[in-house]
Amino acid sequence: MIYIAVVGGAQCSEVDYQVAYEVGTEIARHQAILICGGGGGVMEAASKGTAEAGGCSIGILPGDKNVQGNRFLSYAVATGLGEARNAVIARTADLMIAVGGEYGTLSEIALALKMGKPVIAINSWQLKPPAYLSLTPLSAETAAEALERGLALIGYE
Amino acid sequence: MIYIAVVGGAQCSEVDYQVAYEVGTEIARHQAILICGGGGGVMEAASKGTAEAGGCSIGILPGDKNVQGNRFLSYAVATGLGEARNAVIARTADLMIAVGGEYGTLSEIALALKMGKPVIAINSWQLKPPAYLSLTPLSAETAAEALERGLALIGYE
Amino acid sequence: MIYIAVVGGAQCSEVDYQVAYEVGTEIARHQAILICGGGGGVMEAASKGTAEAGGCSIGILPGDKNVQGNRFLSYAVATGLGEARNAVIARTADLMIAVGGEYGTLSEIALALKMGKPVIAINSWQLKPPAYLSLTPLSAETAAEALERGLALIGYE
Amino acid sequence: MIYIAVVGGAQCSEVDYQVAYEVGTEIARHQAILICGGGGGVMEAASKGTAEAGGCSIGILPGDKNVQGNRFLSYAVATGLGEARNAVIARTADLMIAVGGEYGTLSEIALALKMGKPVIAINSWQLKPPAYLSLTPLSAETAAEALERGLALIGYE
Repeated sequence: MIYIAVVGGAQCSEVDYQVAYEVGTEIARHQAILICGGGGGVMEAASKGTAEAGGCSIGILPGDKNVQGNRFLSYAVATGLGEARNAVIARTADLMIAVGGEYGTLSEIALALKMGKPVIAINSWQLKPPAYLSLTPLSAETAAEALERGLALIGYE
Repeated sequence: MIYIAVVGGAQCSEVDYQVAYEVGTEIARHQAILICGGGGGVMEAASKGTAEAGGCSIGILPGDKNVQGNRFLSYAVATGLGEARNAVIARTADLMIAVGGEYGTLSEIALALKMGKPVIAINSWQLKPPAYLSLTPLSAETAAEALERGLALIGYE
Repeated sequence: MIYIAVVGGAQCSEVDYQVAYEVGTEIARHQAILICGGGGGVMEAASKGTAEAGGCSIGILPGDKNVQGNRFLSYAVATGLGEARNAVIARTADLMIAVGGEYGTLSEIALALKMGKPVIAINSWQLKPPAYLSLTPLSAETAAEALERGLALIGYE
Repeated sequence: MIYIAVVGGAQCSEVDYQVAYEVGTEIARHQAILICGGGGGVMEAASKGTAEAGGCSIGILPGDKNVQGNRFLSYAVATGLGEARNAVIARTADLMIAVGGEYGTLSEIALALKMGKPVIAINSWQLKPPAYLSLTPLSAETAAEALERGLALIGYE
């Protein structure tokens, strides 16, 4: 089973929301599992896309049970870890797709790359890593392209 | 949706394995989600019971993606947190059922009670908390009794 | 350098406060480092004892920088991890001394034993582990006895 | 008391080692506490600088007690959390100084900014955050400049 993390801001533009929604539907179409932070914005959009395409999503929440994740999640894991839960998202993912996003998203991208997981960015952080770093985030223009590139990188088609 | 954690040793007696298996089937029968540490012994037994009864389980693994959880899990969250993942299990659970178990299990029981979650123990730690602690672990003889008592405590029947 | 964790309730009896204070002074007297949760009650008492005897303490706080630890701490590490910080306390300790305490304390005792660290209990949880568990918590009547027994167990005198 | 995190690669160039060493000495000179990941490279250099200038450092280690931190640390907290310990470093810091570094360092920079902590980068990641993000990492050429700019930002001189 393939776990694909979608990361991005809890608040986002309409364009990012639409792209994240499409990433969610693509994840469901490929029978992969969506992993996300469980919140609003990009996380909600991806969860909604996955749900409406009949797929499965797991939200890795920063807080406790009483603070629900977004209503489109299939399952919610309440970590109580605060920002440290970003490392759990990166650890669980086989592949990460970033849509827009701010510093929390950047930390998730960095943690995933640190752990050797491929990252595909759509309208997100443009990083210029030192030349000696072999793994660098790739970019894509559309949800379909992001999935295609990402799944090829992890040898799954 | 109700999340029920089953905790117990990664190695266990045949009797505990059988009881944990039955707890897993009861969880599925009540359409609850099984949360566990994702390993062997009691965790495997509960996951197997849930799987064979058509239910859903999520393993909260201490390590990384490369160390798979048991083969009966529906989903696996790789935390990379070591023993600190016990707090994630307790945080995610609405109710905890302990079967046998050693010190790891005891830590999960204690964390759940600290967070105000009911704990039902089957052939597990007998605690004698100070009289001023209002929440104490209850015990049950069978899987069915554990579920019945536990679900009643969280107002779900 | 030896790290000794002192665990116990954030609220405690006067007797426990006095014992924890003495444990803190003994820790300083042995040039060990006090590790604790950084809060009130037993944690404050131990920190105070260590400070007044010229020793060093590190509080491992559950929350963020804005919630200060008790005023007797030498240093404070803000984890933001909630209850999962109990695993950090146990992991850092070479030896744990429990004074009184409720479920949070019990989780720390259990995590320490799980990690193979000796635990000495003063007026705290009386556990009856299964016979096949080789490591069991010991008890002591006084601070001096707790340190003496504990340091002997870790081969430091 | 001011806690200043120094982050950077566990392997680093000689230039970065020298700069990190100087950052460590500046931290000691300002009576601040050095927080770092406790490992080699930039972390070791900063710890060495702090130690040789008579200051105090705390290493927040990813692993357990048996894997020692670098030999210049004043104190070591063994978290057992893996990469999630990066969030503890950011949470504990009042100010972060990044020297060189790869993806782990980037995650620490991002987590600090997410938590509203100022970050000063020396020969490190050049980020181009979206215009609406008010907090951006600043850069400095030397250790002294980094401390001066950083301490001014947190209102401490």
